[in-house]
Amino acid sequence: MTGITSPKGFLASGIRAGIKEKGLDLALISSPFLSHAAGVFTCNSIKAAPVVLSQTYLKDGYAQAIVINSGCANAATGKEGETYARRMCRKVAKELGISETDVLVASTGVIGERLSIEKVEKALPDLAMGLSPNGGKKASMAILTTDTRPKTAGVTIKIKGKKVTLGGMAKGSGMIAPRMATLLSFVTTDCNITSPLLKTALKEKTEDSFNQITIDGDMSTNDSLFIMANGRAQNPLISGKGKDYFLFAGALEELLTDLARQLVLDGEGATRLIEAQVINAGTLKEAREMSKGVTASNLIKAMVFGRDPNWGRILASIGMRGNINEKKVKIWIQGVNVFRSGKKVNFNPKFLSKKMGNKKVSFLIDLCKGKARAKAWGCDLTPEYVHINAHYRT
Amino acid sequence: MTGITSPKGFLASGIRAGIKEKGLDLALISSPFLSHAAGVFTCNSIKAAPVVLSQTYLKDGYAQAIVINSGCANAATGKEGETYARRMCRKVAKELGISETDVLVASTGVIGERLSIEKVEKALPDLAMGLSPNGGKKASMAILTTDTRPKTAGVTIKIKGKKVTLGGMAKGSGMIAPRMATLLSFVTTDCNITSPLLKTALKEKTEDSFNQITIDGDMSTNDSLFIMANGRAQNPLISGKGKDYFLFAGALEELLTDLARQLVLDGEGATRLIEAQVINAGTLKEAREMSKGVTASNLIKAMVFGRDPNWGRILASIGMRGNINEKKVKIWIQGVNVFRSGKKVNFNPKFLSKKMGNKKVSFLIDLCKGKARAKAWGCDLTPEYVHINAHYRT
Repeated sequence: MTGITSPKGFLASGIRAGIKEKGLDLALISSPFLSHAAGVFTCNSIKAAPVVLSQTYLKDGYAQAIVINSGCANAATGKEGETYARRMCRKVAKELGISETDVLVASTGVIGERLSIEKVEKALPDLAMGLSPNGGKKASMAILTTDTRPKTAGVTIKIKGKKVTLGGMAKGSGMIAPRMATLLSFVTTDCNITSPLLKTALKEKTEDSFNQITIDGDMSTNDSLFIMANGRAQNPLISGKGKDYFLFAGALEELLTDLARQLVLDGEGATRLIEAQVINAGTLKEAREMSKGVTASNLIKAMVFGRDPNWGRILASIGMRGNINEKKVKIWIQGVNVFRSGKKVNFNPKFLSKKMGNKKVSFLIDLCKGKARAKAWGCDLTPEYVHINAHYRT
Repeated sequence: MTGITSPKGFLASGIRAGIKEKGLDLALISSPFLSHAAGVFTCNSIKAAPVVLSQTYLKDGYAQAIVINSGCANAATGKEGETYARRMCRKVAKELGISETDVLVASTGVIGERLSIEKVEKALPDLAMGLSPNGGKKASMAILTTDTRPKTAGVTIKIKGKKVTLGGMAKGSGMIAPRMATLLSFVTTDCNITSPLLKTALKEKTEDSFNQITIDGDMSTNDSLFIMANGRAQNPLISGKGKDYFLFAGALEELLTDLARQLVLDGEGATRLIEAQVINAGTLKEAREMSKGVTASNLIKAMVFGRDPNWGRILASIGMRGNINEKKVKIWIQGVNVFRSGKKVNFNPKFLSKKMGNKKVSFLIDLCKGKARAKAWGCDLTPEYVHINAHYRT
């Protein structure tokens, strides 16, 4: 399995602390080497205590460990919540013999509930003892909430003859409409790259991956994406935007897109992945917003669940997000042209409905306006989504 | 029953033309008197043929009849669709012996399908013959699609000793997130008021009623709200923003809010009405966006269906729409304070869950920031919504 321990010099572990009703719920990632680090976080003005603390600790561009709990978001928990987030970092630092400010923290679960800090502190020594190069799987399981399966990914490239590896894991499932940030996601790499460039690459590549997915249009208070680079690949330090940087950034995009697609496919109650591509848009912003709007529409998500090629909903969705010329727009569903020259194309609805039974349903929208393009990903809307979210806590 | 024929001098009728699979599908409203008229329409850049035509015909501020079909949106239907919309107006004009440009037209149903103009033209003579002061009920039924019941309303006021009546009908159900416009909605009044003031009142009062409701976040290509005022109440002509204008505008707001609430309560698959009020916001825009955001959130809609007082979702929803101070915000669900001073208030979740079983679920959010306030309305998200929209056409 590829994942966060695939790059050289990264260890991980996962354990049950007893925060969730059952299953693993506490994870740790660490490197024996102080790493360059960066993060992107939720834009929600309500930020969870661990988000605020990690942002502070990341200011120097370094980190050596990340501790994560599931089962409790530690958000909207007042002063107490802030203290608990700090106590998690302090305890990890003590166990690993590193500086408290080099430990990052992330939490996910119900908003507004008190974190059982006693259970967390009690479990942390065993969690630290369990760190191993094979611990990636357990860690990827310990960060899940309503997810049905772990999401991990890995990419390997060569930079100046050196093998450079990137590994990642993520959790998602609900409250997913990130802006400039994402869910909980962790990337490790042995690449030798400066902190500022690491941050630049992370921000740029988040735009076209995590920021182009939606599950339900709500933005979490806990969204965090972390990256640590420990330099163990021993490639010459990447300190400028040259060929090596673009190689690395390309690999990062591949990794993030892989995780993003896994996230939507495991969206709450989802049975199918929706991929919407808008081409020949006036601006990149327009292409991004329209492709994302299509994948976020309840009506379109429901019609994908029902395998109904009701393309009028796609036209209405793009029309409400920009100025488009109805007579020029062309729309394809699963490769079949359904709309052009301002009206319906004669297609076989039964044949197309059958094609929409695939695990992946693609929409292609040509605006015939400019040269910009973007892709977005979402999932279908199912009765199961409603059931999950009607009784998430009870 | 109060409705569009409640004001003096308005007739209506409804008939089956055979556009829908079953039930009434063609409606007509008319007055023997040429009326002052105004409309607000969808902001979607994709506009249905009847929307574009009615906008043109309304430019002179007069109208005498409105013809409406359900079962087909006549949107994204090319040149042919434009011709058909014009043919509907022409035929009505001929039957009633009035000018073609004084007939307005509206359509609702599936986007992109060809309108059976032959069936419409064949049914129009009987429809015109059927016009009567008792025809409001049939008309209100003929404009429905997935709605489960007609929506009608009436308000009566006195202006300078004269009884002035307003009547209305609407259809909604899905693809409902109006902006500067709304679904299909028709208001009649015998008030004596100029066209420009009629338009001003309509625009202003739409903002706080129809534009504050959502069912699923999608904006239709056909949203239209028409008003006709035939002056039969014989009040002195309202031609300035004096006391009489404000009396009239207040009554109009009452009528539109009544219809808007009926619309969300009959939203596709809905079992409960959600009312969110934001008070002490920084600006009116903020209050409107946040209250509307809360009622539009899938997560919040699903928790209302499940009667789960998961207030963290409300906090996350307002936090993603503006800059708020977590320590100052207060939240009430069904009158019970659940959040203040940055953390949860101890409340009895079982008791509150029971209270959420009411037909109407209220959220009150105090931002403690400024003086602006707004209300918004939505409905819960249910498995039934998904079923309806998974197979709308098939």
